[in-house]
Amino acid sequence: MNITHAYAAQDAKSRLAPFDYQPRELRAHDVQIEVLFCGVCHSDLHQARNEWQNTIFPVVPGHEIVGRVTATGGQTQKYRVGDLVGVGCMVDSCRSCPGCQEGLEQYCEQGFVPTYNGQDRETKAITYGGYATSVVVHEDFVLRVPENLDLAGVAPLLCAGITTYSPLRHWNVGPGKKVGIVGLGGLGHMGVKLAHAMGAHVVLFTTSPSKIEDGKRLGADEVVISKDPQQMAQHTNSFDFILNTVAAQHDLNPFINLLKRDGNLTLAGAPEHDHPAPHVFDLIFKRRSVAGSLIGGIAETQEMLDFCGKHNITSDIELIAMNQINEAYERMLKSDVKYRFVIDIDTLRQESAA
Amino acid sequence: MNITHAYAAQDAKSRLAPFDYQPRELRAHDVQIEVLFCGVCHSDLHQARNEWQNTIFPVVPGHEIVGRVTATGGQTQKYRVGDLVGVGCMVDSCRSCPGCQEGLEQYCEQGFVPTYNGQDRETKAITYGGYATSVVVHEDFVLRVPENLDLAGVAPLLCAGITTYSPLRHWNVGPGKKVGIVGLGGLGHMGVKLAHAMGAHVVLFTTSPSKIEDGKRLGADEVVISKDPQQMAQHTNSFDFILNTVAAQHDLNPFINLLKRDGNLTLAGAPEHDHPAPHVFDLIFKRRSVAGSLIGGIAETQEMLDFCGKHNITSDIELIAMNQINEAYERMLKSDVKYRFVIDIDTLRQESAA
Repeated sequence: MNITHAYAAQDAKSRLAPFDYQPRELRAHDVQIEVLFCGVCHSDLHQARNEWQNTIFPVVPGHEIVGRVTATGGQTQKYRVGDLVGVGCMVDSCRSCPGCQEGLEQYCEQGFVPTYNGQDRETKAITYGGYATSVVVHEDFVLRVPENLDLAGVAPLLCAGITTYSPLRHWNVGPGKKVGIVGLGGLGHMGVKLAHAMGAHVVLFTTSPSKIEDGKRLGADEVVISKDPQQMAQHTNSFDFILNTVAAQHDLNPFINLLKRDGNLTLAGAPEHDHPAPHVFDLIFKRRSVAGSLIGGIAETQEMLDFCGKHNITSDIELIAMNQINEAYERMLKSDVKYRFVIDIDTLRQESAA
Repeated sequence: MNITHAYAAQDAKSRLAPFDYQPRELRAHDVQIEVLFCGVCHSDLHQARNEWQNTIFPVVPGHEIVGRVTATGGQTQKYRVGDLVGVGCMVDSCRSCPGCQEGLEQYCEQGFVPTYNGQDRETKAITYGGYATSVVVHEDFVLRVPENLDLAGVAPLLCAGITTYSPLRHWNVGPGKKVGIVGLGGLGHMGVKLAHAMGAHVVLFTTSPSKIEDGKRLGADEVVISKDPQQMAQHTNSFDFILNTVAAQHDLNPFINLLKRDGNLTLAGAPEHDHPAPHVFDLIFKRRSVAGSLIGGIAETQEMLDFCGKHNITSDIELIAMNQINEAYERMLKSDVKYRFVIDIDTLRQESAA
């Protein structure tokens, strides 16, 4: 009778609505987690509405999960009942390809198993995410959450946090480096906080003058209105690294021109249509590069959580009840959120018990 | 009466024709070089015809220069009369910016002084290149040429050679790496030879089946016809690095998809119009990058010449007389050269003496 209460979309046109399902029996290395909070990522909306044309319905979204361990399989070694844990975008991978061997499961050559809308490698059952009272996950894909942090604010670290942390680390952001963050949304606001905590000189690029104050509060040393060519020109050839979190199509060249020799612009946001082409001369004459980056590996996600625990970093969130998810999606489409919705899963438990 | 005999274009529409000029008096660190051979780079044609709209006429092209030292200034330390030397694309730079300090004079923040169509930093005189009986250059921008190499074939190393060597080294090409070279022209054929000598597994990409045999002769382990999607598909996700030497506009995405995780595609050819945009998803899902690269620094150019001396590498060339330069330009426009024209400057000396 161990039923999981969740919210699911039944098809691309439906609102999310209550959905119960029977979770799998715990396998030897499984951990059962009572979900406390689940962040709302823009991908959840894309998948619920089948905007990537790959959704298997019903879909239970949610891959920014924080909760407590309530049961474990017979051979779990890392977690015990009562542990505070998190689950991000992945719940399994092939574990044997070079990516997996190097701790970069997000680049698994077989494709990692996504937390929802994926397929279990053993049973081929469809995975269900964190808009739910509980989840069952192999312990290798479970993260330990520092006890000192506000738990609702931790949830978005599992996707927005690691998606910005990983490229910042990969491109050696730290003291003495000038780093740009393009866009102040769910990813961007984490990028600003993390790059600041890493000791870099952080410049936020935004199109909205209304975000200047908030950008500085979050940790930006400077805020540049990217639509203002004069402001942009003052930063020509000066950045070691720019992390672009904007998922809407836009011209990258004004940002490429702000990179120093050997500077890199990394794209963490995937637009529906590709950005206009980079100017080849601007790459050649400074040996600049443009790259992409996808989430982060499991070990790096743990490193990020520990880093956030040490520096007391969480996401700025707006807490919602489970039954507010459909309005939250509409507001997200208008970028009307500072800076991430997080679902209080206790509201789902109460609703289900009523 | 120390007149230099040269060939110059007098304006964008003129054929190259004899032109004499009075070289500068030797400064303390200058080296006077009797030019023996000068390679013909496509840039020479662009500049002679003012296709980059920055040509100062008359222009004496030529930046792939090999010759012997015939005189030195009072304080030269590196070269003596009789030394075999080369000069490439640069004859000076600011020497104090980070790029110059790191031996990357090609990225000088003040702009390096090009071997021709540049401006002397002291006198503001326009620089004249290697289609000439002699050149005068500061010793710091003069390279030592290994005595064991065929001198006519050395000339193109000074531009085509270093332009491919530098990115191959920068992106750590060597044993165990799978490396692609796109295009089999002046740059591409050097890329194949150099990557092979560095110990990599080299794959040449060409659109011309007629080049398969030659590609293998030059050192390619495999040749792929890049217009054939089936051949291309066999190499998906397998390259550590791809050096793209093609200066004409083309779609980069079929090559980006051949890169492994963390693989890099570097552009060494600059097209008149930018290539179509890279697909953002293809960058993100493998953390791939696209970069540019410009020539190479002076120290690295010396390293490249020494490497070529050790591995007995020179360019495949077609030797021409100075007065054949205008036909050579027309043939170059049709890619009718294997793989670089080199001017035998003795023919200019004979012509001038006649």
